[in-house]
Amino acid sequence: MVRTGGRSARVVSNVLSAAVHELTRSGYDSFRVDAVASAAGVNKTSVYRRWPNKLALVAAALRARPVMAEAPPDEGTLRGDLVLALDRAGAYCASIQFRDTAGLLRTSEPEVEALLLELRREFYDKQSVVVGQAIKRGELPAGTDAHFILDVLFTQVVALTLRAKQRLSQQTLGQLVELVVSGAEHGGARRPV
Amino acid sequence: MVRTGGRSARVVSNVLSAAVHELTRSGYDSFRVDAVASAAGVNKTSVYRRWPNKLALVAAALRARPVMAEAPPDEGTLRGDLVLALDRAGAYCASIQFRDTAGLLRTSEPEVEALLLELRREFYDKQSVVVGQAIKRGELPAGTDAHFILDVLFTQVVALTLRAKQRLSQQTLGQLVELVVSGAEHGGARRPV
Repeated sequence: MVRTGGRSARVVSNVLSAAVHELTRSGYDSFRVDAVASAAGVNKTSVYRRWPNKLALVAAALRARPVMAEAPPDEGTLRGDLVLALDRAGAYCASIQFRDTAGLLRTSEPEVEALLLELRREFYDKQSVVVGQAIKRGELPAGTDAHFILDVLFTQVVALTLRAKQRLSQQTLGQLVELVVSGAEHGGARRPV
Repeated sequence: MVRTGGRSARVVSNVLSAAVHELTRSGYDSFRVDAVASAAGVNKTSVYRRWPNKLALVAAALRARPVMAEAPPDEGTLRGDLVLALDRAGAYCASIQFRDTAGLLRTSEPEVEALLLELRREFYDKQSVVVGQAIKRGELPAGTDAHFILDVLFTQVVALTLRAKQRLSQQTLGQLVELVVSGAEHGGARRPV
């Protein structure tokens, strides 16, 4: 049983890696499930048994990426946690793997837009622990809108990284965090009541 | 003389409109100066006399768009000016004309990246009058980095508008301005010394 479980986890991981690769190469519109199966060395029907369609397979592959799967930082201060989280996301954006998402974006399928929206929400849900802890520690006022400030921060880091085509400096990240945290500290990010 | 000047201004305006249209239709890589000349009903050589190459013509066309050419708001308060400036930029992003820039972005020509960087800088130079006046009125501390806060604001408005595919509400714009202005008021956007 353990051996079967291990093999099965390895197969899943191979298929998901192959799916990210296929997305990078072909984009969503030309994405072929059989190309993924053959690259991963498995039967197409066993891929479809677990992921019933192209969208399900792409969603699973994108969720399995480290940038989505890893736990948020917990360094003890809000500014420290945010700089680290933004640095990780920026490093991913500066990497060649980010092109899988760029590949995704070369489509106007509404199902893909809905998926990207959902992934963004899941990502912010996870990262918002950092804001929740800061509120508990008294670093931010209660009622601070975590998704709102995270979206301002991550959107800007993605934009700056794509322009610079490289990881941002700690100074740039710190400056951005300082602006947004100063605003939130003074009630500039309270959820509308 | 006056009549000739008027005709010449009209020709320039026709050529630049045709250039924006050609950019929307073909993107930068497939942009053809002769298609622009023929759409504007002028001779190709007279286009080249004024704009020596494709890049110069594209740059002139992009600079002539109202979003680049119009004066920044002057409503008497920083928050009011910023909401208005962001609303104008967002309305443009939500419009069909924004596709000319999207067309531009379908290239990896370094000259185009350099042009976009320059246009962004020119745009922020113009809008930064709003921040300068706020400093004079005592709404923001001296040494506030105008380009830095403008870039956070405009990048987020562009991202949110492209996701929503429509103009943002006054509430959304106001919330974003409140966060960034609160941060800047408390020294979160001072230029590093």
